[in-house]
Amino acid sequence: MSSEKYTVGVDFGTLSGRALVVRIADGHELGSAEYIYPHGVITDVLPGSAVALPAMTALQVPADYLGVLRTAVPQAVAAAGIDPADVIGIGTDFTACTMVPVRGDGTPLCELDEFADRPHAYAKLWRHHSPQPQADRINAVATRRGESWLPRYGGLISSEWEFAKALQIFDEDREVYQAIDHFVEAADWIVWQLCGSYIRNACSAGYKGIRQDGRYPSTEFLAEVRPGFENFVTEKLDHRIGRLGEAAGGLTAQAAQWTGLPQGTPVAVGNVDAHVTVAAADALQPGRLVAIMGTSTCHVMNSDVLREVPGMCGVVDGGISDGSWGYEAGQSGVGDIFGWFVDNCVPESHQVEARRRGLSLHAYLTELAGAQYVGQHGLIALDWHSGNRSVLVDHELSGVIIGQTLQTSCVDMYRALLEATAFGTRMIVETFVNSGVPVNELVVAGGLLKNELLMQIYADAVGLPLSVVPSAQAPALGSAIHGAAAAGAFSDVPAAAKQMGRREQNAYTPIPENAEVYNRLYREYVAAHDWFGRGNNMMRRLRRIGSRDTGSLNDSGSLNDSGSLNDSGSPNGSGSRNTVGVSA
Amino acid sequence: MSSEKYTVGVDFGTLSGRALVVRIADGHELGSAEYIYPHGVITDVLPGSAVALPAMTALQVPADYLGVLRTAVPQAVAAAGIDPADVIGIGTDFTACTMVPVRGDGTPLCELDEFADRPHAYAKLWRHHSPQPQADRINAVATRRGESWLPRYGGLISSEWEFAKALQIFDEDREVYQAIDHFVEAADWIVWQLCGSYIRNACSAGYKGIRQDGRYPSTEFLAEVRPGFENFVTEKLDHRIGRLGEAAGGLTAQAAQWTGLPQGTPVAVGNVDAHVTVAAADALQPGRLVAIMGTSTCHVMNSDVLREVPGMCGVVDGGISDGSWGYEAGQSGVGDIFGWFVDNCVPESHQVEARRRGLSLHAYLTELAGAQYVGQHGLIALDWHSGNRSVLVDHELSGVIIGQTLQTSCVDMYRALLEATAFGTRMIVETFVNSGVPVNELVVAGGLLKNELLMQIYADAVGLPLSVVPSAQAPALGSAIHGAAAAGAFSDVPAAAKQMGRREQNAYTPIPENAEVYNRLYREYVAAHDWFGRGNNMMRRLRRIGSRDTGSLNDSGSLNDSGSLNDSGSPNGSGSRNTVGVSA
Repeated sequence: MSSEKYTVGVDFGTLSGRALVVRIADGHELGSAEYIYPHGVITDVLPGSAVALPAMTALQVPADYLGVLRTAVPQAVAAAGIDPADVIGIGTDFTACTMVPVRGDGTPLCELDEFADRPHAYAKLWRHHSPQPQADRINAVATRRGESWLPRYGGLISSEWEFAKALQIFDEDREVYQAIDHFVEAADWIVWQLCGSYIRNACSAGYKGIRQDGRYPSTEFLAEVRPGFENFVTEKLDHRIGRLGEAAGGLTAQAAQWTGLPQGTPVAVGNVDAHVTVAAADALQPGRLVAIMGTSTCHVMNSDVLREVPGMCGVVDGGISDGSWGYEAGQSGVGDIFGWFVDNCVPESHQVEARRRGLSLHAYLTELAGAQYVGQHGLIALDWHSGNRSVLVDHELSGVIIGQTLQTSCVDMYRALLEATAFGTRMIVETFVNSGVPVNELVVAGGLLKNELLMQIYADAVGLPLSVVPSAQAPALGSAIHGAAAAGAFSDVPAAAKQMGRREQNAYTPIPENAEVYNRLYREYVAAHDWFGRGNNMMRRLRRIGSRDTGSLNDSGSLNDSGSLNDSGSPNGSGSRNTVGVSA
Repeated sequence: MSSEKYTVGVDFGTLSGRALVVRIADGHELGSAEYIYPHGVITDVLPGSAVALPAMTALQVPADYLGVLRTAVPQAVAAAGIDPADVIGIGTDFTACTMVPVRGDGTPLCELDEFADRPHAYAKLWRHHSPQPQADRINAVATRRGESWLPRYGGLISSEWEFAKALQIFDEDREVYQAIDHFVEAADWIVWQLCGSYIRNACSAGYKGIRQDGRYPSTEFLAEVRPGFENFVTEKLDHRIGRLGEAAGGLTAQAAQWTGLPQGTPVAVGNVDAHVTVAAADALQPGRLVAIMGTSTCHVMNSDVLREVPGMCGVVDGGISDGSWGYEAGQSGVGDIFGWFVDNCVPESHQVEARRRGLSLHAYLTELAGAQYVGQHGLIALDWHSGNRSVLVDHELSGVIIGQTLQTSCVDMYRALLEATAFGTRMIVETFVNSGVPVNELVVAGGLLKNELLMQIYADAVGLPLSVVPSAQAPALGSAIHGAAAAGAFSDVPAAAKQMGRREQNAYTPIPENAEVYNRLYREYVAAHDWFGRGNNMMRRLRRIGSRDTGSLNDSGSLNDSGSLNDSGSPNGSGSRNTVGVSA
């Protein structure tokens, strides 16, 4: 029998959960398994119902998450060919902010017969975007009151986060709201199911729960946001905080039975998928910006300085690892923009040729785009097809392509979109640097790193050496690292990451002549970025017209028709991101 | 035997010439024939040569034009089933500005053995765009000297016109230049071949030859443009002017033999394809803007007022019909943008479905686009894929599409491009109106009027009643009308047009609710138009980067590197179209 020890990392994604068995001696990945959520993402109707759900609804069934514990974990252990007794810890990460409304014992409200037909009783997935009016209200009041926590979130609270989601329930289904004993991050709910203890992880509580310097938004603030909502924190949200990498408890008998792992196995405090990836990359030192690049991109980075960075998602003390300021930013559309282009903008002749050559359209277009010199296509694009998370924080922005001629090909436009997302990352990097938060290295994880042209474009266009995380399961590896720290195999998460995490440093470095041309192109990107994103409200007005809304928005971001914020999203006036027009 | 009388109209296009037999009593079209130029457009190598021609070269062989007289004219008469003796007049129209360098007897230089291998001895087609440096020089000097004729051309002389083309020959092949006895519009050369008399038509001389108030640019001006070029007008250009619709002479024996028509048949003074179409539409009254819509769009309109209209192509006394101020403007890309989109941006699934339904992609996309309500797609496009002729007069501008999301389809983008060209026309109409030149009616001729959705979009987006010219051969019909006037069958061209021309008035009228939404969308178009077209030089800089030009252009249109205009095109600085940086 081997004396090697292992931990299990479980990564709960949007459509499935994946379990990974990792050797603590060197981070070697021995086996993994995936479990696809039976209910997936609920957007149209509740299970067993025919009633249409409102637009921008995205719900989940918490019982699906338990299926990962019951299925993927034992399968991964079996695939690894190890003795379950050699598993000394378990760590998890989750999408965020995904929220589960529960009773005092952790039972999701949607599992109670009385609430099974109530949408607000279900888990709200991170991308449940309908509470935008609630987010707008929160931002308007916070701006007017000058709440001290607002700059920690780049000036705007997202509709994806805890307070907007809770306020939507308060506004739309008071019975469900009153039945909630705890409004719980799914990241913490799954740990609760594993070890029987409800502990709020410092990461989610900080980034998504507006917890700063040990405090949440005040009752006075909440009362002003919506009378009756003032006790939300004390009654439903606040709970003991757990530091990342510490143990929340040991596996219960029930959870041991589900997973096939020994009862009492230490379970790490919950965490968020992007943030655990920093450990998987062994990039916890300050200034290493980790970009998890897939459908969208999440940027996370530790720093030893606290600064107000415009348009970032948040900065949280110990939000990535204990003792550092953890910064988060993001791009709401990256791989999904490339996917949209391939699905909607590539003519038959190229599709036929790609098939003939046995290449995916992505591989085919990338090969042709890679034969171009930098700037050859004469195009600049804005990567806002799915809105802009950082640094403009405006999901009503949209995409632009500039410079088309009668000679412009789909290859040209595809390359321009690749580059646009690189410029989007550069904008985030420069905003950090200009705010006094140094960035020294770009570390890429996620599905897009397999595109070598894209990686070289990022190195050239951002102008930083680029490292890559070789693991195909980086979040699960990061969770396994947290599990090892929680088990006491290492003194802390950074020590565990040093032993078990890895990245290939300088996998791509900027090519000087390319970087020089990208400097010129980036100036054009910035000009278009600021004009469309800060200089006017054209894109919001186009959306209004598209939705047959007869109200009009002027360039300063204020509404001409009513002054109400109810349907305006977060106004984004000239040169600033101030929120306007509070109707108290 | 019938007592009906007929005229023949001959329309010389870019790739072919078409002859049409028309009954003078009512404009009925009896027969037509087409002759395709054997040499087409020469862009790569001269006939019998392997020497590559420079970029943006577009030459023709004048002998090809005679083939139309020898072939298409007798075929059309035969197809009409009439007695050639009943043809009482002939009229012609030509592309412009297409120039033939000839000896004193009208022989094209390229037909002389000594010059057969010299590109500058051939006819220069209208779209021969390589003399842009010469046009830039002309504009720079004219602006500095404050030449009084410059505002008559919206402030800029085109590289397509007579002086730029002649100066290029002077600069690049002095021997050919010196051998030129007359530098002749092809429109006038073909009339010369028909009747043996060289007469310069008032239309070409005005719009393309800078003839205003009976004078051409002065020798002082020309000397300042290029020493040695000062006598170009007196030595090679100036000649007797013929009014439109008067007879230049009668068919020579030779031409009678070519055409099969009676010797002595009156031949109308030469004319331009767009301009004769106004007669075909019976739209010679002031305020009827005739848009000939095909690959590009040409706008022509009579007015009884003389105004300086920024960015128009020109205003000429008697340029469309004697006694009126004829205005011309244009859009350099219309149908070719739709064609580019269909060829490059439509995914296979739609192509397969269009084939299954037996529809062209244009018809298929138009049908789907027509099912949308106005503004539904949330997009705004700029129609500059082939540059902008009016009102920005900048062929280095390029296309833009704004507002794409992950839900945007090719149908959305196709419709946005249709609308962009309509907004381009509205910009021209509003510039006329704002300059004091009334526009009351939009009259459409040309290939695009078969797209009914496009026509309704134009009526709605421009906000004018739209008439259509039913003839599929409107220019040839217009030429036949001029032939009838020249023959004395009518007192003048307007009288002939009233009898023989026709348009379907109010074929499309603005739908108020659509027009209201287009008013909102047009404001966005104008904002983007002015920012990209007047506010900065982004598109020029992108072209520089694309061509690996390391010089940089700042936003004001001046060059940072050298101050030379040689490669800058016509600078287009903030808010004005002033030409800058003359290096005398």
